[in-house]
Amino acid sequence: MGKLYGIGIGPGDPELLTLKAYRILREADVIFCPEKKAGAGSVAYEIVKGLLEGAGAKIVPLVYPMHYSGEKLLKVWEENGEQIAACLNGGKTGAFITLGDPSVYSTFMYTLPYIEKHGISVEVVPGVPSFCAAAAASKTPLAAWDETLTIAPVRGSSGEDLGRLLRENDNVVLMKPSADKAALLSAIRENNMEDRFVLVIKAGTDEEILIRDIRELEQYDIPYLSTMIIKHR
Amino acid sequence: MGKLYGIGIGPGDPELLTLKAYRILREADVIFCPEKKAGAGSVAYEIVKGLLEGAGAKIVPLVYPMHYSGEKLLKVWEENGEQIAACLNGGKTGAFITLGDPSVYSTFMYTLPYIEKHGISVEVVPGVPSFCAAAAASKTPLAAWDETLTIAPVRGSSGEDLGRLLRENDNVVLMKPSADKAALLSAIRENNMEDRFVLVIKAGTDEEILIRDIRELEQYDIPYLSTMIIKHR
Repeated sequence: MGKLYGIGIGPGDPELLTLKAYRILREADVIFCPEKKAGAGSVAYEIVKGLLEGAGAKIVPLVYPMHYSGEKLLKVWEENGEQIAACLNGGKTGAFITLGDPSVYSTFMYTLPYIEKHGISVEVVPGVPSFCAAAAASKTPLAAWDETLTIAPVRGSSGEDLGRLLRENDNVVLMKPSADKAALLSAIRENNMEDRFVLVIKAGTDEEILIRDIRELEQYDIPYLSTMIIKHR
Repeated sequence: MGKLYGIGIGPGDPELLTLKAYRILREADVIFCPEKKAGAGSVAYEIVKGLLEGAGAKIVPLVYPMHYSGEKLLKVWEENGEQIAACLNGGKTGAFITLGDPSVYSTFMYTLPYIEKHGISVEVVPGVPSFCAAAAASKTPLAAWDETLTIAPVRGSSGEDLGRLLRENDNVVLMKPSADKAALLSAIRENNMEDRFVLVIKAGTDEEILIRDIRELEQYDIPYLSTMIIKHR
């Protein structure tokens, strides 16, 4: 009935794929690549394509519009599930690639039931999340001993929520800090955490940048693929 | 002056090493393997040793007693830093292996300054954390949309702290749930979360076990390498 692997390809450096992800991508009949709109291209595919030389998988883009919600989103999942099932018809093996780890802010886990209902067996292959790459790049421990680590997206947070997040947690990872830079700057300043943050842009790639200075942060146009680590202690 | 890679080897399945970790381990002159006491053996080394066939690295165990703290712990870091520097003398390349990811509850990040002060250049190579493997094994999303994810060790938590943790966070990963099973069971029951948890034992290995039933959990002797995921919604 076909088998699908949901694969975390890690934060961006092709060498940070796992041996398992690499093997499956080389062996797969079909590789499904999410993109934001039809023809936009897949960030995940750009990362792995250099590893696929000589391998024979068919590349199938799947559109996952990021601004959909409710019924419209369910319909996309339904349709993508059908498309995956159709492509794997006849016992083929597929790989659905996602940035970072499939369990961490990826829609893959939510489309899973829409794939399984067609009788396709699904296995999830974990990957290196972006915040681990950001911690490695900046040599920052994310958590130790009895400390907690809280991961939160900046979107959806108001300034007050962000401030409380910083005050009440030992270690905080902020995903998508570009979503509300003004609120982020205020929250850092109001909680006197100017010396306790690092912003990591494109961790583990040739374009990696670390920012630890609040004035530099203020002037910088934070790109989408960025992670901030803030340590209380 | 020597170079040291601090390498996350992932949750336990040798195939979950990254391509980069694999390459460095195959090329290294020395591999440093943490163990809890002298002669106890290294869990991390057991995971990677099958991948090292034909590679020529010298294997050096480093003792990191888990119950040390304060001055005694600093002395261990100091001594291990010296031993690493001595082994890498003459421009050798070393790899220090840690379970999961080096930034997540690993002492490696804390010994880093004790290694760098000998003039050794250190690079951290991120790995797949155990909780991502647990999420993959149980097909559980750790976080999505504007949800937060909180990672906390059970050790050091009283029952009341655990209860608050479960009430106040969208998604919680509990590391080392074996540390206080009674408190954990109470916190789950008192917060009516009997249907919202999964315990994953030895995720991604042949001995993997998933427990979702509170009565089964009650009777089960939770081993050390376990992770619990609890979802509020």
